[in-house]
Amino acid sequence: MVFKLNNQLLSKIATGKGHGEDSPYFDGWKAYDNDPYHPTKNPDGVIQMGLAENQLCFDLIQEWLKNNPKASICTTEGAEEFRDIAIFQDYHGLEEFRIAIAKFMAKGRGDRVTFDRDLRWRTGVQLFPVDCESSNYFKITREALEYAYEMAQLDNIRVKGLHNQSIKSFSQPEFVSISEIIEEEVECNLDLIHIVYSLSKDMGFPGFRVGIVYSYNDAVVSCARKMSSFGLVSSQTQHLIASMLSDDEFVDNFIMQSKKRLASRYSSFTKGLAQVGIKCLKTSNAGLFVWMDLRRLLKEQTLQGSLHYGE
Amino acid sequence: MVFKLNNQLLSKIATGKGHGEDSPYFDGWKAYDNDPYHPTKNPDGVIQMGLAENQLCFDLIQEWLKNNPKASICTTEGAEEFRDIAIFQDYHGLEEFRIAIAKFMAKGRGDRVTFDRDLRWRTGVQLFPVDCESSNYFKITREALEYAYEMAQLDNIRVKGLHNQSIKSFSQPEFVSISEIIEEEVECNLDLIHIVYSLSKDMGFPGFRVGIVYSYNDAVVSCARKMSSFGLVSSQTQHLIASMLSDDEFVDNFIMQSKKRLASRYSSFTKGLAQVGIKCLKTSNAGLFVWMDLRRLLKEQTLQGSLHYGE
Repeated sequence: MVFKLNNQLLSKIATGKGHGEDSPYFDGWKAYDNDPYHPTKNPDGVIQMGLAENQLCFDLIQEWLKNNPKASICTTEGAEEFRDIAIFQDYHGLEEFRIAIAKFMAKGRGDRVTFDRDLRWRTGVQLFPVDCESSNYFKITREALEYAYEMAQLDNIRVKGLHNQSIKSFSQPEFVSISEIIEEEVECNLDLIHIVYSLSKDMGFPGFRVGIVYSYNDAVVSCARKMSSFGLVSSQTQHLIASMLSDDEFVDNFIMQSKKRLASRYSSFTKGLAQVGIKCLKTSNAGLFVWMDLRRLLKEQTLQGSLHYGE
Repeated sequence: MVFKLNNQLLSKIATGKGHGEDSPYFDGWKAYDNDPYHPTKNPDGVIQMGLAENQLCFDLIQEWLKNNPKASICTTEGAEEFRDIAIFQDYHGLEEFRIAIAKFMAKGRGDRVTFDRDLRWRTGVQLFPVDCESSNYFKITREALEYAYEMAQLDNIRVKGLHNQSIKSFSQPEFVSISEIIEEEVECNLDLIHIVYSLSKDMGFPGFRVGIVYSYNDAVVSCARKMSSFGLVSSQTQHLIASMLSDDEFVDNFIMQSKKRLASRYSSFTKGLAQVGIKCLKTSNAGLFVWMDLRRLLKEQTLQGSLHYGE
């Protein structure tokens, strides 16, 4: 009775199941929570592979924090700024924060956001996969794009943008950034392009909730600013990140070390998988993601079979 | 041309003007920004009276921070927790954070949120004022409520909730909390009651963006949790606030001192206003708000006149 009432009062988006606890992503979480792997105590348990988490460089960050007590408003050295930071609530954010983030994004190579979970629920967008083939290392080809476009039209899906699952894990070395490409391509409608980024992957700070929307569309930026009333980055966090990412020496060393450690972790991880007969795509070069070939473990060799794999 | 396109693509809420830079609240901000008051350099400038800001107790907080370095993940003493906090992204929030906030809310007396700016834009709700009279200190009477209800119906407004401008500033001493009242009133529909709170006023931390929605309605809570993906409180801030508000001795002293200082500030402020002939409602007892009688400064003695006062 109450549920029926709620369904009438709340919108379809609010009551939809495309996000949170009802998504395939969270099925994986639940399986892990119920039966977590442990090398000696629970060697048959579930390993959490869905969470993009980079814990390889926290020692560098901790060292920086100890050497830079003024960066925090909670230290004896930095507490005099507590008042100004605590009351700061400009929707545009701290200027030093925006500058530092932009600089860091320029130095890094951009992030591969997990669009599926983050974008589908609120927008109602249906993502349509572009099938790529192992024969050419899953590169996105003109033929693959055109085939996917035709298939989408057969399904009565209006194509509004292109996203491929594989860009999560792979990019070609000559690829630098979307914003560079679109500024060369004079024919595309810039109003329809929005770039999202977060500090979750490159820095490993998902808990700080630092997200960036870069759009060429003034109306979208204006709307995002209004919405930010409910989701501004904590000024305490803005202040810390601004100090940290303004430190060029630290950032350069961090990026260099992070790459090195990721490469070494990738190597030991894929070697371990190879020992139990699991192959990975060899051209992985985009940060903390790998693409494993688990096909031989599927009950059914279909896309549907892969979605039911966890069950 | 682009604007027309955007209007088609974005919803009415997104392009609406009821929030942000186009609201009367921001007109006040702009006037202040363009011509800020200074006692000697600009004595004819604009004084910012619209921002609810409590800066009276930052010395207590700064002292606590210095004495509790483990509360921050950015100190030598607390940095070992940096990793766990930086990667924490459970949508329910840190348990110690939720417990500490609930305890603090129980100790404090609840906050008077500026509904007008915060709630109108997203919900599309139109707030309808209940006229109260100076003769009985602007108390909300049954007659005033019934009259407002009739007026709203004449305007074809469906009344869904009651809110009075005056509860921003005034409450009767015997009034404790909405949740106490509704649990006695067995006849009301709990599914339609949602309580919002933030640390902006009681603690003076608007920049930390700590907001609470307390609802009896599971569907609303579930939707809010989904949305929190885009607006979770930074785990760095959760961790700090959890430690601070779990310290009973500090919280008790803070609340006591805060009340004392607000009372003293209220007294000196209203005395100063009285010297220039501005009277205030005498029964103010709800924190940092006062209600000034500026009617004699209006060009027109109407509600419309008061809205245009800043022009």
